[in-house]
Amino acid sequence: MRLDAQAAGVFPIAPTPFHPDGRLDEGSIDRLCESYRGAGATGVTVLGIMGEAPKLEPEESLAVAARFIAGIGLPAIVGVSAPGFAAMRSLARAVMERGAAGVMIAPVPSLRTDEQILGYYRGAVEAIGTDIPFVIQDYPLTLSVQMTPKVIRAIVEEHPSCVMLKHEDWPGLEKISALRGFQADGSMRPISILTGNGGLFLDFEMERGADGAMTGYAFPEMLIDVVRLQKAGRRDEAHDVFDAHLPLLRYEQQPGIGLAVRKYVLMRRGLIASDAQRKPGSALSATARAEVDFLLARLARHEGLNLGGFTAR
Amino acid sequence: MRLDAQAAGVFPIAPTPFHPDGRLDEGSIDRLCESYRGAGATGVTVLGIMGEAPKLEPEESLAVAARFIAGIGLPAIVGVSAPGFAAMRSLARAVMERGAAGVMIAPVPSLRTDEQILGYYRGAVEAIGTDIPFVIQDYPLTLSVQMTPKVIRAIVEEHPSCVMLKHEDWPGLEKISALRGFQADGSMRPISILTGNGGLFLDFEMERGADGAMTGYAFPEMLIDVVRLQKAGRRDEAHDVFDAHLPLLRYEQQPGIGLAVRKYVLMRRGLIASDAQRKPGSALSATARAEVDFLLARLARHEGLNLGGFTAR
Amino acid sequence: MRLDAQAAGVFPIAPTPFHPDGRLDEGSIDRLCESYRGAGATGVTVLGIMGEAPKLEPEESLAVAARFIAGIGLPAIVGVSAPGFAAMRSLARAVMERGAAGVMIAPVPSLRTDEQILGYYRGAVEAIGTDIPFVIQDYPLTLSVQMTPKVIRAIVEEHPSCVMLKHEDWPGLEKISALRGFQADGSMRPISILTGNGGLFLDFEMERGADGAMTGYAFPEMLIDVVRLQKAGRRDEAHDVFDAHLPLLRYEQQPGIGLAVRKYVLMRRGLIASDAQRKPGSALSATARAEVDFLLARLARHEGLNLGGFTAR
Amino acid sequence: MRLDAQAAGVFPIAPTPFHPDGRLDEGSIDRLCESYRGAGATGVTVLGIMGEAPKLEPEESLAVAARFIAGIGLPAIVGVSAPGFAAMRSLARAVMERGAAGVMIAPVPSLRTDEQILGYYRGAVEAIGTDIPFVIQDYPLTLSVQMTPKVIRAIVEEHPSCVMLKHEDWPGLEKISALRGFQADGSMRPISILTGNGGLFLDFEMERGADGAMTGYAFPEMLIDVVRLQKAGRRDEAHDVFDAHLPLLRYEQQPGIGLAVRKYVLMRRGLIASDAQRKPGSALSATARAEVDFLLARLARHEGLNLGGFTAR
Repeated sequence: MRLDAQAAGVFPIAPTPFHPDGRLDEGSIDRLCESYRGAGATGVTVLGIMGEAPKLEPEESLAVAARFIAGIGLPAIVGVSAPGFAAMRSLARAVMERGAAGVMIAPVPSLRTDEQILGYYRGAVEAIGTDIPFVIQDYPLTLSVQMTPKVIRAIVEEHPSCVMLKHEDWPGLEKISALRGFQADGSMRPISILTGNGGLFLDFEMERGADGAMTGYAFPEMLIDVVRLQKAGRRDEAHDVFDAHLPLLRYEQQPGIGLAVRKYVLMRRGLIASDAQRKPGSALSATARAEVDFLLARLARHEGLNLGGFTAR
Repeated sequence: MRLDAQAAGVFPIAPTPFHPDGRLDEGSIDRLCESYRGAGATGVTVLGIMGEAPKLEPEESLAVAARFIAGIGLPAIVGVSAPGFAAMRSLARAVMERGAAGVMIAPVPSLRTDEQILGYYRGAVEAIGTDIPFVIQDYPLTLSVQMTPKVIRAIVEEHPSCVMLKHEDWPGLEKISALRGFQADGSMRPISILTGNGGLFLDFEMERGADGAMTGYAFPEMLIDVVRLQKAGRRDEAHDVFDAHLPLLRYEQQPGIGLAVRKYVLMRRGLIASDAQRKPGSALSATARAEVDFLLARLARHEGLNLGGFTAR
Repeated sequence: MRLDAQAAGVFPIAPTPFHPDGRLDEGSIDRLCESYRGAGATGVTVLGIMGEAPKLEPEESLAVAARFIAGIGLPAIVGVSAPGFAAMRSLARAVMERGAAGVMIAPVPSLRTDEQILGYYRGAVEAIGTDIPFVIQDYPLTLSVQMTPKVIRAIVEEHPSCVMLKHEDWPGLEKISALRGFQADGSMRPISILTGNGGLFLDFEMERGADGAMTGYAFPEMLIDVVRLQKAGRRDEAHDVFDAHLPLLRYEQQPGIGLAVRKYVLMRRGLIASDAQRKPGSALSATARAEVDFLLARLARHEGLNLGGFTAR
Repeated sequence: MRLDAQAAGVFPIAPTPFHPDGRLDEGSIDRLCESYRGAGATGVTVLGIMGEAPKLEPEESLAVAARFIAGIGLPAIVGVSAPGFAAMRSLARAVMERGAAGVMIAPVPSLRTDEQILGYYRGAVEAIGTDIPFVIQDYPLTLSVQMTPKVIRAIVEEHPSCVMLKHEDWPGLEKISALRGFQADGSMRPISILTGNGGLFLDFEMERGADGAMTGYAFPEMLIDVVRLQKAGRRDEAHDVFDAHLPLLRYEQQPGIGLAVRKYVLMRRGLIASDAQRKPGSALSATARAEVDFLLARLARHEGLNLGGFTAR
């Protein structure tokens, strides 16, 4: 279960479930694992930006990762981004020992030039060791680091342990085409590309050459269906499934409050016990919750959809 | 036809149509006007950010505005944002003389604090004169200026000639609620709120208290239907109409290439002769154009929609 | 030794000294303490942004703070900024138990509006407790959070435990005048204002009403002299002392490489054993080091200056 | 007098002088020209960011440029940056016809990737024509576009008409070394590098290989002396001259109010009749003006300096 460049399918980004008082909620981790596995996920990604990772103490990070690794029984990718390489190294080596399939590394927001980005990944790989498969996280909207296809190619070519791109640029369709073009012209070895952004363009990302999705939309079943249908060449069906979820997906994809929406939906679905975030966190107004309820009710009425554990109340 | 705080409905943001060689295309302006009027628009907004206004010479700006004003036969709002107040004044006074209903003013991107924002609008109103009704454009994603509800209220209270907010924050639903709350508690006089962002949240924005939309989505018919249905309390129907367009609307709403998508669709609909932008402009790849075609074809198949002049090819 | 609103003088921002292999260098902490005390500092500030705080494990942060507190024998302010309030609370309470005079809290970079900033400090104070004196860190260039004088006043008025502003805006002179104006008109209770930005405007900041400096320029003796001379009304002498250091100070104040310059100078002065930063860190080229050596040699030639332990080589 | 890659010395960035009512002040243009020429400038640069160019109407831009070109009798570089390439072309061709030596082009702030930057300069050169010598303006602090040495090299190599870099990165010393390294290893043809940032690092920039300065510090005599002394290998004298001005230079270099300081000093020197800016502009408080007066008085007392027309009042 070591991550490699052939990885494909859906790796849901798992939230970190907390009790209302801020303690870790291990039972909800187990429930999430069961639900992801049951829905047909290929793996899981934990301690991402949406996983409130910076709010965890080091030992908590390890505990959360270990619990997901044990519970999922599938490849688990662990976010190890950290301001210091020493902390990145200890977490990376510890989670690999406990059975992680690989780690994900986001650039620090201060990087501006290609040279700085390459230098950063060089330092990170030196720190964690060349034996740990890693994922590049490319998320300019939040991290304010612009990675061109060429700099991604340079990282891939320099580091054999780079096996995957978490693609989260916006707009990002042409970036997938550019990277697949590099593979086609032989200038870059093949890597796995899983897409993020809550899935907002997953329908077309698959057509551009993505291998799947790595994002936290609260209905991973839909992501899994779209990936499966697109791979089977059933384009219109894939879009039908996607379009039915788009109103909710768009609502979840709002900056700042997205995690609050996502945790609320997961709670409504019974997959986590509480939608609490560790402080400081974002919160939904009563009106916003009612809007999500309305979108869930519309989604539930839509026939032929697999809504998992969700029941309209 | 002077803009006031009771304005409601849909004011499509009109693109500026060019010939492939960069000349203004007056014929397409006329066609756009006819189409907006036929669809039931309440007015039109020209020379906005999407109207490529900074690429026009002063006399061209006036010519474009005058042609729209003459052609639309409805209230026309003209964007007069400019680095200098002198240019803002000359354009504002010239278009009002030619029959504009009001003007729209965006803050310059360097403004950071509430005091700076208030000072800027004070200077702008002093420049254009207190007799011209104006619209505040609140568009942080592009302009990087953060206007809180309180600073908007302060502008409204200081300037009787401020009659409307072009609302384009993201996320922005709570901002509408906050402003309507100010009206309810008597701390702000009523203003018109029209929403932008390509319409991405129009379904809920109407429920939060918006008076309509001011945005450039290439099917203003849909915006008009959603506004009408929501005002009639036909909530589920409004969402049905909205949801059918959301896949295309989302595609059009991508930063950087949005205008290229929009002009391409308007060209496909026969409303403008060419999708050319003045240079430097963004362009769609062949794959992107095919993706838009695919979305248009799916939209056309959806029964019960009023697609205006569009025919699937 | 509890921090209060009468605090004045110079609180040098201490770097965190590391051995070349990344281990904490406690001996250098002791040497720094001795040097600050000998130079006439009023206190010390540790674990600031320049202190590489995010690269420390929680137990290391506490160890560094405790060593400085024990070694300095003067009021010590500890930076407790953290992505989560739980971590902020544990560090704050632990360092206060070990004898810290107060804590410093920077806003998280995602805050945009006055309401968000106020909400953040409300949450932070609730987390650490109302019994711990705290310092607001206002550093827009690095943190991208814009705090107007009004929002600072609102924080001060809401929280009696707010005793000091670390002023680091650029330009920032008018902000000091505005805040002192609030005190003069009775709309804000007096607070201590210490200025940062490497001291780049300390000469005039004192004239505008600052109480002193809190910054890490590698010759705190100069900061102390300027503060003392300005308080004694010896304006021209203060500027003479300041001007002699400005060429080096300006060189140290470069974004991105400033800490490397500072640690290099402190090492040259014999105050820390190594200029190593924890990875990822910035490094000086050989040319840059030679430039700093040249500036140090010019400074050493300048007669009448108290260069502390520094000897030109 | 056509600009080429051998250009060296000082090209002061000229402000655009206005009367208090906002009209162009041609008499002050003539006085500035005489002063620059008398001080030993190599040329002049007009319509830069500090020249309030975006606040001029097209015909005014041409009039200002033409007046400077006629008055200076030395190579004149004209800023032609514009949102649209059509406007850039008309201004560029018009000023070359009137005798400009070359034009300067800044990237639009939305550019993020190397490909976008290269594409932008490709379009700009296509627009203005390959026969007009041009200068790349690299000013990330204000334009938010990051140009690596590699992307600058790519522009230089692609466009024979690119003859100069206006270097204004911060920190920027290593960038000069990197570009001169490209020339040394034969991977880039030689270009002229003139530095900006108000001159804040001119002392060392010359030592790194700059050919001179292109910036608007209100005492171009000093810039000219530093460039001359450094070229003559009189390093310590160069730094002496530079250091004497650094306190004022630093004050002038503040973001947002820098132009107000600069125009005020030029007015105090008798070089322009009024320090008025076109609205919206920044203004100095009475305290700030007194601070500048104080710095001017200190500078005047410093013996051996050539202060041009300035007399302490």
